[in-house]
Amino acid sequence: GHLHNSEAFNYGVETWEAYKRGSLSKDLVEEQKKVQEADLLIFQFPLFWFSMPAILKGWMDRVLVQGFAYDLSKAYDGGLLQGKLSLFSFTTGGSQEMYSNKSIGGDIRYVLWPMQHGIMHFCGVKVLEPHICYAPENVSEDKRKEMLTAWTQRLKTLWKEEPIDCSPEWYFK
Amino acid sequence: GHLHNSEAFNYGVETWEAYKRGSLSKDLVEEQKKVQEADLLIFQFPLFWFSMPAILKGWMDRVLVQGFAYDLSKAYDGGLLQGKLSLFSFTTGGSQEMYSNKSIGGDIRYVLWPMQHGIMHFCGVKVLEPHICYAPENVSEDKRKEMLTAWTQRLKTLWKEEPIDCSPEWYFK
Repeated sequence: GHLHNSEAFNYGVETWEAYKRGSLSKDLVEEQKKVQEADLLIFQFPLFWFSMPAILKGWMDRVLVQGFAYDLSKAYDGGLLQGKLSLFSFTTGGSQEMYSNKSIGGDIRYVLWPMQHGIMHFCGVKVLEPHICYAPENVSEDKRKEMLTAWTQRLKTLWKEEPIDCSPEWYFK
Repeated sequence: GHLHNSEAFNYGVETWEAYKRGSLSKDLVEEQKKVQEADLLIFQFPLFWFSMPAILKGWMDRVLVQGFAYDLSKAYDGGLLQGKLSLFSFTTGGSQEMYSNKSIGGDIRYVLWPMQHGIMHFCGVKVLEPHICYAPENVSEDKRKEMLTAWTQRLKTLWKEEPIDCSPEWYFK
């Protein structure tokens, strides 16, 4: 559709306005419908550079627009996606030791903070404990099978889990 | 080109192997050449969801491949891009107050950590103090002009600046 302000382009304002007048791209509307209908959002990905791969970051950037996911003074516990749960499940290249050593990889919770608190909590979505498989490519086939079994087991009782408190204390003790 | 291992696709291994045999996509080779020739890398962007916009994250994911930017036990101070400087310069949507309040936005240094320490330091690149313009769209035109002037001024003496120490202490006091 047309730009709301063609003099000074502002991506955030344009997507917000497009959301309000129902003229976002069809692919975004479809993704937003999936989010709207979901009780639980599971993000499964390989950790790239201490964060999500770009294609998943692009999903966050494009789908979670103002008006849909949050709004003026409707953020964090007041976010527009209240009532939903989320879970970040990912594999890493580095070992668990690397992510437990502040002078090297830093604490894994520093990695979790922007995704869990900065994005999901900001939109009012509660966050379950992350599911992290460390360095699957560097472990034995047996260990990899154990990882899959553990995930299968966890999925069976996921609905009984309580969200983390997603406060700075959880991340930065 | 062909896959190194067509049985089990591993993005990191494939780009590493492609780099070694000189068969990365032309656009990546060109970007790597720019990095190789640069003394200073300035990343300028609007902060999206406490991080880089996806398109810039994609640049990191695709360009900084193993063999080029880091290698087995060649990371952090031993990274392959030693001798270069970097600077993250970005605008935010949220105010400086929001990024100084741990219970809301958290400290801005939590945002800087994955980019500066997790990516640049990992590749051996030293990091200058970040340049952050908070919420330019919510300040006066005069204030915006001041921001531009300050950046212009800083660029003039950038070469005299010392890098930050980029250790966990800098980020998490």
